[in-house]
This record gives sequence, C-alpha cells and structure tokens, in this order.
Amino acid sequence: MAKQEQSGGSILQFAPFQSFVDEGFWHRLSSLKLNKLGIDDSPIPVTGFYAPCSHSQVSNHFTLLSESIPSNESEQCSVPAIPRSNRNRCSVPGILYNTNTWEAYHALDKKSLLKEEAKKIWEDIHTGKAVEDSAVLSRFLLISFADLKKWSFHYLFAFPALVFDPPATVVGLKPASQWFTLEEADSVSAACNDWRNSNLTAGWRDLLRVPNAVGWELNKGRHISRVINLAKSMDPTMLAISAADLNLKLMRWRALPSLKLDKVSSTKCLLLGATLGCQVARMLMAWGIRKITLLDHGRVAMSNPVRQSLYTLDNCLNGGDFKAMAAVKSLKEIFPAVEAEGVVMAIPMPGHPVSSQEEESMLEDCRRLHELVDSHDAVFILTDTKESRWLPALLCANANKITITAALGFDSFLVMRHGPGPLNSTHDLKAEPENALSADMDSLAMADSGAERLGCYFCSDVVAPTDSTADRTLDQQCTVTRPGLAPIASSLAVELFVDILHHPNGIFADCEIADSSNSGSSEQPLGILPHQIRGGDRESEKRKRIPAPSN
Amino acid sequence: MAKQEQSGGSILQFAPFQSFVDEGFWHRLSSLKLNKLGIDDSPIPVTGFYAPCSHSQVSNHFTLLSESIPSNESEQCSVPAIPRSNRNRCSVPGILYNTNTWEAYHALDKKSLLKEEAKKIWEDIHTGKAVEDSAVLSRFLLISFADLKKWSFHYLFAFPALVFDPPATVVGLKPASQWFTLEEADSVSAACNDWRNSNLTAGWRDLLRVPNAVGWELNKGRHISRVINLAKSMDPTMLAISAADLNLKLMRWRALPSLKLDKVSSTKCLLLGATLGCQVARMLMAWGIRKITLLDHGRVAMSNPVRQSLYTLDNCLNGGDFKAMAAVKSLKEIFPAVEAEGVVMAIPMPGHPVSSQEEESMLEDCRRLHELVDSHDAVFILTDTKESRWLPALLCANANKITITAALGFDSFLVMRHGPGPLNSTHDLKAEPENALSADMDSLAMADSGAERLGCYFCSDVVAPTDSTADRTLDQQCTVTRPGLAPIASSLAVELFVDILHHPNGIFADCEIADSSNSGSSEQPLGILPHQIRGGDRESEKRKRIPAPSN
Repeated sequence: MAKQEQSGGSILQFAPFQSFVDEGFWHRLSSLKLNKLGIDDSPIPVTGFYAPCSHSQVSNHFTLLSESIPSNESEQCSVPAIPRSNRNRCSVPGILYNTNTWEAYHALDKKSLLKEEAKKIWEDIHTGKAVEDSAVLSRFLLISFADLKKWSFHYLFAFPALVFDPPATVVGLKPASQWFTLEEADSVSAACNDWRNSNLTAGWRDLLRVPNAVGWELNKGRHISRVINLAKSMDPTMLAISAADLNLKLMRWRALPSLKLDKVSSTKCLLLGATLGCQVARMLMAWGIRKITLLDHGRVAMSNPVRQSLYTLDNCLNGGDFKAMAAVKSLKEIFPAVEAEGVVMAIPMPGHPVSSQEEESMLEDCRRLHELVDSHDAVFILTDTKESRWLPALLCANANKITITAALGFDSFLVMRHGPGPLNSTHDLKAEPENALSADMDSLAMADSGAERLGCYFCSDVVAPTDSTADRTLDQQCTVTRPGLAPIASSLAVELFVDILHHPNGIFADCEIADSSNSGSSEQPLGILPHQIRGGDRESEKRKRIPAPSN
Repeated sequence: MAKQEQSGGSILQFAPFQSFVDEGFWHRLSSLKLNKLGIDDSPIPVTGFYAPCSHSQVSNHFTLLSESIPSNESEQCSVPAIPRSNRNRCSVPGILYNTNTWEAYHALDKKSLLKEEAKKIWEDIHTGKAVEDSAVLSRFLLISFADLKKWSFHYLFAFPALVFDPPATVVGLKPASQWFTLEEADSVSAACNDWRNSNLTAGWRDLLRVPNAVGWELNKGRHISRVINLAKSMDPTMLAISAADLNLKLMRWRALPSLKLDKVSSTKCLLLGATLGCQVARMLMAWGIRKITLLDHGRVAMSNPVRQSLYTLDNCLNGGDFKAMAAVKSLKEIFPAVEAEGVVMAIPMPGHPVSSQEEESMLEDCRRLHELVDSHDAVFILTDTKESRWLPALLCANANKITITAALGFDSFLVMRHGPGPLNSTHDLKAEPENALSADMDSLAMADSGAERLGCYFCSDVVAPTDSTADRTLDQQCTVTRPGLAPIASSLAVELFVDILHHPNGIFADCEIADSSNSGSSEQPLGILPHQIRGGDRESEKRKRIPAPSN
C-alpha cells in the first residue's frame, strides 16, 4: 500500500497496485482446476508479489506467477515452498474465487467479497497481526472464470483500501528514530500493545464498525473484466494435446471419476489391419491412447476413402499409398502428438501355400509379428479373413495380451475379447519346462477348469482355418457390408477395451499388482457397455453370427 | 479367315486374327456385370468386327467395341442396333465366358470350349448356314475375368481353325465366274444344296466326327492371358465414383437385391450440426448419397479433430475454420464427386434472448432454415442442445420430410425417426383454409387417431425447450461423452435412414406413387436393423434416456 500526499490537503489516499499476471499462473490454475478441483469452486489462497516503488505518482507492479498457486500435495516434495519475501519481491496474501461458469462469474457479489477482505484487514489491524506481518494490510482479491476449453481467462483484481469516515489524514510521518531513542521507542510500543490487549479496549473494539472499502482495479478506466487468451501464444501441438486431454479430464469431474487416464495413455496398442483400424485408431486417440502401431500390407484402393476414415482420394493415386503409412500420416494430421507407427507386412496365414523360396521371409514375418505382439500391451485383430487372425490369436494368448477381435459380415458383426493364455489362468510358473512355448500350447489345449477363462475367436469354431480368399466372387471379395457396421463395431471394440483396462477382474488386473497406487477396493469398473466383461463370463461376449470375411 | 499359301506345299493354313479390344468394350462389360448379371456367369453372345486385309503375311485386325456387347433391354430404345457389316467392318459372332473368380478363370477347360466352337462351325458348314452367312465360319471365343475392383481385365481369345486329317489342301481357287456362266453357277449351287439336304447325306453327316480345332491366340508367343488395367487411363474422380458405386452395386448381387441405389443417390440430405454431422456425412457418402448440405455456425476447435472425423489440426489454426466449410472441403477430398454445400448459420432457438437489433436477422435465419428444409428430402437433426432441435422439428413435420434425430449423453444416446406432419397423416387437403400453416399446427396438436403417426423428439417431453446452455460448468459444456458413442449413434442414424428409404410403409412411400418403376408388391424393406420402423410402430424407436446436451 502506497501513500500519496495531495498537494492541497492531508487526506490519506492509496495508490492502487497495477496488476500483472504471468501466463504460468493461468497454466497452473488450469491444471489445478482440471486435474484436482473439478467442480469444487471453494476460494483458493494465492500469493501475490510486488516490488515497492520509490516514486510517488507511479503505481507498484503487482504480479501473480505460477508459484502464486499452492502446489498440489503430490508435488510438494519436488517444488520448493514460496520463496521468502525480500526487498524487491514482497509477498502478499490473497484469495481467488474461480467460478465454474460464466454466469456464476458475473453473478459474484463483488461488493460483499470486497467487504469481506476489508474486514480481514480491519481485524488484522486490531489483533496486531498487521504489526507482526504488514503484508496482511495489502491483501488482495481475484475473481476469475477460466474457460479451459478456449484457454481464455476472464478476471478482475481488487486491492481493498479502507475508507474512513471522517477520512484519515496524513500527518508528518518521520521514522521513530527521529523522535525517540531506541529505549523510548520500545517502551512506547510496549505500552501500546498493553493498552490494545487490555480489557479497556475490548468494548471499544466491538463498537467499531468495519469501514467501507474500495479497490476494484479499473480496466481502461472502467469496471470491466480483463480477459486473456493464451491460445494465441501457445504452440498448436501443445494446444491440441491440452484440448484432447481436456475432454477426458472433464469426464473425471463427475461423469467418470474412476477413469484412469495415465494408464490409458501409456497403453501401447497394436492394430492388425488398417481397414477397421481406421476407426479403431481414431477412437483410441479420442480416449487418450497415444501409442498406436498399425500393421497392414495393402495399399489404399479407390473404394476405401468413403468407408475408411483415415484416407482421401490423394492416397489412391499412382497405385495407392500403403495403408499403414497413409493411416499414420493421417493420425498425425489429426493429432500431432500421437506416437503412431506403420508396419507394412502381411500376416502369415495357415492354408495359404508358401513356396520354398518364400519360406524364409515367411518365417521372418512370424518372428516380426511375435516381437510386435510382445512389445505392445493390447492387440486389436481387425483383419479381413479368418485365417489371418489365427497366428495373432495364438501369439496374444501366449503373451497374455489384451486381445480384441472385430469382424464384419454384410449385416452382422462380431466384437469380442479373447481370454488370456494358459500362463495367466494358472499362474503356475514353477513347473516350466525347457520348451516353454510348447508347454504353453499344451496347457492351452487343456480343458478349462475354472471360471476365469474366456475363449478366443477360434474356440467356438469347428473347422481349422483355411484359405478363404480363393474362389471368391467380387461380391464376396469386396467391402460388401452395410457401411454403418465398421464404425459401430470399431467403436464398440474400443469402448470394450477401455472397460477392460478399468475392470478390477479384467486381464489387466495382474499388471496392477505392480501398481501400488491402484489397490483393490478403490477399483471400480466403468460398467457401462452391455458387453462389459466379468472374468470368465462367456455370456457377456457380444457375439453374433460368424461373419463372412470381407475386405 | 484368311488363307496362306505355303511356298513349298499346298496345305491349307489359317492366318490368325490379331485381336484388339477397345476400352469401351470393357466398360460396357463392367456395367453389364455389375448392374445386370451379378453372379450369373452364363456365356454372353458378343459380336466382333474385322476389316479383311488384302495382304497375305499380314494378320487381320479383329476388334471388340462397346457395341460388341448387346445392349440392356432398357437401353434398346435409344441405342441403335449393331450396324450391318460392310466391306471394312465385317461382323463375326462370338461367345464370351466371363468368370466370377480368378480361380474359375484359370479352371476353364480351354480345350473343351474350343472344341464346342469348332463343332458349331462344323455344323454350320453341314447345315449350309455357312453358305447363307459366311461370318459363322469366323466365329470366335473370348474368356475373361473382370476384376471390377481393380478395373483390371484378364482375357484370352480363340479363333477356332479346324484341323483336318488328312489336311485340307489348297486348290487353285478362282471365282466361279471364270468357270461357269451365271446360269451354270446357279444350277451347280442348287444341285449342291439339294444333295446336302437329301436323305442320301443324312447318314453320312452323322458319321462325320468333328475335326480337331486350334486357335488360342498367342501373347508374346506364349499361351498366356492378356491383361489390361483401365485404372491407369481413367480420371481419378471417375475411378473414385465407380469404386464407391462398386461396393454398393455388389450388394445388389446377393446380399441386398432390393437396394434402390438410384433413389438413395438422388436423395438430398440436410445435416443440422457438423459435429455428429461428420460421421453422418461420411456414412451417407458410403451409402451412395451424393447431395449433402451441412449447416453449422461454429468453428473447428482444438478438441474437435480427435473426435470429429472430418477435421484435422490445420482446421483449428488462426481461430479455426468454419465447421460447415471445413467439413465440405474434407468430404470433397474423400470423394470429389459429392455435391456438398456448407451453410454457416445459427439455428434460432426458443428461450435464447434476442435483442431488438438482432430481431430482423433472426427472422431471416428462420426463413432461410425454412427454405433449406423445403429444398431437401431428408433432415438429420444433430445439434448439441435440445432447444436448437425445436424449430427444425416443426419445419420438418410441416414439410413432411424424413427426419432423424441423433443426440448424445455421456454414456447414452438417442437415435430416432420423427413422424410425418399432419398433412401426410390425414391426406385431407380439401378443407385447407387460408392460413395453411396454422391449420397444420392445429392439426398437429390434435390427438392421433390412427396407428400411422410417430412422434417427434419433443412429443414425449414435458417441458418447453429453454436455454440449456446458460450456467453450465465446463464438464457440461464440452464433449464429455464416451468417444465411441458419436460414431455409433451417427451410423445407426444413417442405417435407419436407408431402411426408411426402402420401407414400403415408410414416409417415402408417398413419394413413390409418382415413381412408376417401383410398384407396390416388389417393395421389400431392407429389414435388418432392430430399430427398423414399421409405420407408426412406436415400439421400434430406439430411444434410451433423454441425453444431456453435449457439444
């Protein structure tokens, strides 16, 4: 609080602070609101900083920085406490009212809020707190509406100044050292304190009414909100990330508090087939999955763009781009922060003849697919023939990956979760023989003893997979499905996947043993889709009739 | 058939034709196969043309043109019959075996096929048909596999030449005029015919065995198929059109013979809202709808691309493109032949205050929306608030448009068909008063007497629409829905729409009165989706709980 002597009078006046808010403050507020507070709009204690100005007639700059907002508890270990004040950086306590809505922001009773702060100052003067810490005399008030969707912040500061009646007048202030010796000063001070704390002043204090206060900061001379839009100064990719995360984090406020975004975003997904893979990849990105690998050996054909949402006509020219590569390029145009990779490779298939000169490269493909399955957490089997699902289904069962199959018929579709492999269902690792893989397969072939075990795509099949592509007429070769089925099946596959990630009895539960922050009782399944899977409940598989292969 | 005299001998040999197939032939074949024949692979009679060559040692060119394939019956009125032969264009009868699969093509018994043609020639010689029409001696055979998906055609010609044992030898051929007078020639000819038709030759003919035949055309000196790929010479847009249509036309072969592609493609669709509108527009294009208008007043926000499949990050920069315009641009990149239009306009909403200076432009918006509804056949109401559906629902009911609503909640969605308005349900136009619109509304308000009437989005609502956007917290304002719901609801909306277009009792049935080519009894509903609508069957509406508005 600065004092200003009027040329012609002696009334005490206050030179207002001039506020400045660092962008870091708004970023910290956004993070606090989005990740921790949710719809809780209780006042937030904040700290402002100013450097006293030696010139009268010049307002002091008052600054809010990112450290003005108290750290989250989890961050307290690493982030240092607010630095102590020094001559050039005096700290001031304040309070922030950040509303949930634009309407609530405008409905704030600014007069009452200011009065409340004035009362604190008045009380601090009377309790002597102001003597111990003069910063409480400069207390400030900030009201805001943070439109996190637009990175736009509406706000208004108040620096409460008490208005006395009759007005306080300025006396010739001089340092006490000019009037008293050090001993005399101590004695006066002690006498004042005694008097203030004595019974004599108790009644007197009660009689005092809190004086009125002024101090809402003007914006271009008027009492209107300031607004800052950070989007303009932010990198587009960063904006895209925060925007995509925004929708997901908002889910956690009320709709889905159990959503585990960290787990979801760190899951690596392998998509086999870039036809249904288009919609699956889009939905995964929308749920916050950031690591996506797309495998396909085909090229984008002219008939693809109207049905497969990651391709345009440009991808079809000059023989067509590889689907895996075109899809990855498109994903990055949608969301540049996605870690997407394309793999151009055919999946080895039983029943398809392999010539002797192709044998080595086919075995290499098997090895490569094995490695891909091992290096991902979840596999979506989205290919267009039954036999191309065979090897991936085995590899996934063997490696205990989350495995989801989606397949289309003309007017039917199948979306199902594969059960885990034998290691997961038995947890019996002690008897592991030399040839672990063949033992796994033996074990896989054994009858299921418990309720924990789900089947795979082939478990209800009675014929071995064979070459289904030979001798197919055009209407069997092409994408002859009702167009709506691909997005419906793909979306259900991803919703099912997200449910599995969250289910306490899901296959992922094993992985959570190592994750101490997620212990049993707090786990709640998302529990929304009808095909949500309880461990071993075969009824819950959403299985319609076996679809005819399509492309 | 040309003759060639060997220098050293007198054995009769045949100079083979050299085949040339015009692209028009393949286009006509594709159209015939796709639109008419389907999986019917019966032999097709075709006509070839050649100009006799006067040089020995030079093969005659033999040509197939688009008119080589008989016209469809429906085209017969407008397309002239095959032109009569002349000196430079002799026509030859042939037969085309076009197989359904690559495997069937290779499995064709070429020897038998050739023998069959040879037999025809042999019989025509003996019956004298060859004398009446010498073209039957040059009959040809064509086998092919038309891979319509790739615009690639595999084919092989045979020009059967009879192999006599002992070989036929060349005698000094001279025109009969050099040996006989005209009268003598007639007399010899008549005597030959008498002899051939007499009982004396009958037994003799039966004894004759059909001679062997040769004549499969060589390709670079070998007996391998020729292949032509038309895709390289076709305009990309034309290719995209034919490819998109291909999948739909193939549906008609077996899966969905009742699919009325002409009706579907000529339907004009108005999409209100370019959020769900993204997926709806994509699905409409995939079903062959070509006329799409997208209305939205908003701009593409950073959070949109991961959930709304017609936008990329580029659309979000510099404040964001208008969604309606960005969506149209994207649709054209997917399928350049789409007739898509964007309309940037807000829908007037009850409960939202209008200032007096905005009044005129709001009324103008009402008029514009009215015109848009009138000029389209179907309206998809896909906006993000309840109140923005109000005016469109009224206008659609009044104009008896096919109307589909899709709306999302967090984990619920609604897809429904609106019922037709009062004019359609009563067909009672005689008592139309001066103010037709108000009478319509009166009638609309009347209790429903028959089973014909479905409700609209508001019919089961108990409160008037009001401003639902005010005072909403961030998690209520933003797209806080499970990401999978938008594509599921949008796709169901379009599948429902296509079902309605085909249902004999659907609202569109009225329009079909004028369409004589679709008469009652042949009408079959597609009959696949569970929410398929029989007229007035309210049970069949797929209605879950009223969704919270979302954006």
